[in-house]
Amino acid sequence: MASVQGCLLDLSGVLHVGSAPLPGAREAVSRLRRLPIGLRFLTNTSRTPHALLLAQMNQMGLDITAGELLTAPLATRLVLEHRGLRPYLLIHPHLRPDFAGLPRHRPNAVVVGDAGPYFSYQRLNCALRLLMEGAPLLAIAQNRYFMAADGLNLDAGAFVAGLEYAAGLRAEVIGKPAAAMFHAACAQLGLSPDQVVMVGDDVEADVLGALDAGLQAALVRTGKFRETDADQLGNGAPVYADVMDFVDHLEASL
Amino acid sequence: MASVQGCLLDLSGVLHVGSAPLPGAREAVSRLRRLPIGLRFLTNTSRTPHALLLAQMNQMGLDITAGELLTAPLATRLVLEHRGLRPYLLIHPHLRPDFAGLPRHRPNAVVVGDAGPYFSYQRLNCALRLLMEGAPLLAIAQNRYFMAADGLNLDAGAFVAGLEYAAGLRAEVIGKPAAAMFHAACAQLGLSPDQVVMVGDDVEADVLGALDAGLQAALVRTGKFRETDADQLGNGAPVYADVMDFVDHLEASL
Repeated sequence: MASVQGCLLDLSGVLHVGSAPLPGAREAVSRLRRLPIGLRFLTNTSRTPHALLLAQMNQMGLDITAGELLTAPLATRLVLEHRGLRPYLLIHPHLRPDFAGLPRHRPNAVVVGDAGPYFSYQRLNCALRLLMEGAPLLAIAQNRYFMAADGLNLDAGAFVAGLEYAAGLRAEVIGKPAAAMFHAACAQLGLSPDQVVMVGDDVEADVLGALDAGLQAALVRTGKFRETDADQLGNGAPVYADVMDFVDHLEASL
Repeated sequence: MASVQGCLLDLSGVLHVGSAPLPGAREAVSRLRRLPIGLRFLTNTSRTPHALLLAQMNQMGLDITAGELLTAPLATRLVLEHRGLRPYLLIHPHLRPDFAGLPRHRPNAVVVGDAGPYFSYQRLNCALRLLMEGAPLLAIAQNRYFMAADGLNLDAGAFVAGLEYAAGLRAEVIGKPAAAMFHAACAQLGLSPDQVVMVGDDVEADVLGALDAGLQAALVRTGKFRETDADQLGNGAPVYADVMDFVDHLEASL
């Protein structure tokens, strides 16, 4: 790893699976904290608000502070605030706390998240009309689908694609693998992308996304990792057994 | 017009607007019937079933028989029957008569029309699951939006695009401007596409679509025609004042 001064860690599949921390995850975070590098935790979480996610991490003994946790909804909120946009929110009600306090009257931007059954025809039409009046389309993420108790469910990406087609425009994607979220984290650390390494278990969202955004990256063989994922990387990024193996190599390189 | 042996006419904007026939439309159809050419009427109608549309045409004095009227839903039904497919229907309830009698148990194809408020998250998820199991996606049409009393409304195309993105496949589009519907009409007439001329007021759906499908085509300056439409055509297709003007030129060329 060349001159790493910052480290971004994915959560699910790297530090925990469900409500259980992965073996060595807590110690890996502790050791990272003792290194002279910046640290952030990045997740595309789709329905869990920032404060609840933080509580869940701390319950697992993963000691993360509010300022260190950058979620795709929070990164979207930062974009809205930075540009003075008033959002029309197509999101799941669970996620509303992350957007509380933003101006909502006369909306001039459309934000699409994993709204699930709250994607009604009427609300999609409201979004369409705003887009046709020139509002930008911000996609918290662009995932295609996820598995739920009743089978596959459409994720935000399907509705982003539908609105893009209808309104004849392209969404600005915020969440991984888009560059926006990686660059927001680098900016928080005061580092340039090439000084930062992203560690994840999702070869596309975490690793290829980070590489495309100009960061260094590493894949871990935990969480959703499959052997074929490593083939996609070639020499672009190293693959480690788990987050502790990554920390071992990082310490040795500093 | 080179050796025309068949003629396809769009309905709305060519023969009528709303519930009123356009000037000369009835006489134009009568004169076409006296020519030694085949005749079909083609429409992408989104919520009106075939039988009701036929009755509406006849009420305006436009004498069209059931066999002469090819709608996008009917063309979709013909595809389903031809390939022995059992459809899962994402359509408006008004359109159900057009698909009555088809086998519906254990569906192995997804059909998307302008379902409007009947595009629920639950029904879209059912469609996704079928597509992921290998069912083909048939789009009755791919329009982006339409104007309704409450403002712009999403049309079928948005949901087709969303399902395409989620399932990672491309829809087979049946309605104009796709080739499928033009070719179905030519097959009914027993003619090859280059022997048939399509007449419409929609430069993209009717004229450019027909040209792409290998037919001849003509644009009329009625219905939704705008002067900028003619610029899109170059020398690709002639532009006539109205359907009667078209018939004058067709008669002179035979």
